[in-house]
Amino acid sequence: MLLLDGNKLSALIRKEIQDKVRLFCQNDVRPPHLAAVLIGDNPASQTYVRNKIRACDEVGFASTLIKKPASTTQEELLHVIDNLNRNPEIDGYIVQLPLPRHIDEHAVNLAIDPAKDVDGFHPFNFGKMALGLPSLLPATPMGIMMMLERYHIETEGKHCVVLGRSNIVGTPVALLLSKKAKPGNATVTIAHSKTCNLAGLCRQADIIVAALGIPRFLKADMVREGAVVIDVGINRIDDPTTNRGFRLVGDVDFEEVSQKVSAISPVPGGVGPMTITALVENTWRAFSKKS
Amino acid sequence: MLLLDGNKLSALIRKEIQDKVRLFCQNDVRPPHLAAVLIGDNPASQTYVRNKIRACDEVGFASTLIKKPASTTQEELLHVIDNLNRNPEIDGYIVQLPLPRHIDEHAVNLAIDPAKDVDGFHPFNFGKMALGLPSLLPATPMGIMMMLERYHIETEGKHCVVLGRSNIVGTPVALLLSKKAKPGNATVTIAHSKTCNLAGLCRQADIIVAALGIPRFLKADMVREGAVVIDVGINRIDDPTTNRGFRLVGDVDFEEVSQKVSAISPVPGGVGPMTITALVENTWRAFSKKS
Repeated sequence: MLLLDGNKLSALIRKEIQDKVRLFCQNDVRPPHLAAVLIGDNPASQTYVRNKIRACDEVGFASTLIKKPASTTQEELLHVIDNLNRNPEIDGYIVQLPLPRHIDEHAVNLAIDPAKDVDGFHPFNFGKMALGLPSLLPATPMGIMMMLERYHIETEGKHCVVLGRSNIVGTPVALLLSKKAKPGNATVTIAHSKTCNLAGLCRQADIIVAALGIPRFLKADMVREGAVVIDVGINRIDDPTTNRGFRLVGDVDFEEVSQKVSAISPVPGGVGPMTITALVENTWRAFSKKS
Repeated sequence: MLLLDGNKLSALIRKEIQDKVRLFCQNDVRPPHLAAVLIGDNPASQTYVRNKIRACDEVGFASTLIKKPASTTQEELLHVIDNLNRNPEIDGYIVQLPLPRHIDEHAVNLAIDPAKDVDGFHPFNFGKMALGLPSLLPATPMGIMMMLERYHIETEGKHCVVLGRSNIVGTPVALLLSKKAKPGNATVTIAHSKTCNLAGLCRQADIIVAALGIPRFLKADMVREGAVVIDVGINRIDDPTTNRGFRLVGDVDFEEVSQKVSAISPVPGGVGPMTITALVENTWRAFSKKS
């Protein structure tokens, strides 16, 4: 069984990006610069943003954290975004979700300059992706595609079952896997809460991408011998034996399923670090396009 | 067996739109106005554009045909598009494809104002559709969804197999069928030229959308008893007994398959007229949004 190690692979890819920064960014060429906007003090959001900023710092990018209170109005946030759009020193930026309820996430997303949209969720970028055109891709599906590519998992002609149809993971990863590309060219089934006979469907799959958000949903009897399983779930479950009182598990019952598959990504240490690496890669691409 | 009659259904829907035009467009309110840009003299394109313009005229819309020679440069076409974007009297317009080889279709598509993009292929509109947001939808998938809705074909929890992954039909119809919507909520498989065991996959389907462009590809032994079949193919095959020397057949072997299914759309007279009706509906929507 091949462990699809997102930490190891991320370290390798980030080292490659670091080398490119060292090669290209010298004398009068400044390094790529990512900004992150964080509204309020959601602890999970703070952790995510911190990890993204740290990953950028490690590869030699510049980074800026813009922290605003939960009381920030939509108008104030749109003003921050407008400044980021105009600032030629910023190559890409993210607005960390979720936003406070009084702010319309869609309006915020539409205000982001697509050329700086390193999260890839602006409809213009999402549409280019859906049409098979080059674009800044959403980080999690992009991280999954990088993982499949770097570990030489064949996707052409394979049946991929994607569990979940979210805009963040399920829908874009299904689109990317179905495209005439490498990796890609897979027969893709999008399954979700309304799907009948999910277990039978999963047993047909050569590759399963589990992105349902249900802890340890995928069991060994739902997986064909020798399949490839990508676990996108990040679920907190209570665990009084840990300092934090919880631990992270995926959407896959790793102990059971890993006995049966040819390759599997763990949680933590699988798709999670690859998502951050994809964001770093997108920032590099947004930077390179301008220069 | 229920015949999904695109001509009859189109007549009904166009009558509804005509009634809305009569109700809303009087005194100082002008009717919706569609423009069509036709470059060169491809006979099939001329027929398509003529049918679109005629459909608009019939429901009481205003229409304008802009005809230019095959020698038109990309710059000249972009100038035409710029004028259409600025013209407040034009609610929506289409640029008939294919374009002459010296013109970059993608650059042309990007120049269209998304608010007037009644073909729904601008990445901004395509992205909104993929994200499940309201938008102007591509005409053929929209026509298919209207057909499923009006004929009360249940899609929730059904397994839909889409044959073909084109940007015009396969990819968008797969996206629409998978969304949390009505019609929608289907388990969707996107199959294509790289798919293994296509026949076995089709036999599992409750609903098949055939959009491969291969004349009479889908045979009775590939279809489950009682399935629903939507035929998107429009293929010319030689037929010396007709005046034109050819006739149109779909991607489905209608004689065979219609014996076995619970519902099927014919070719001609199925998805074809629904596509034009969807364009008329999009023009109405583009008009209503502005007013």
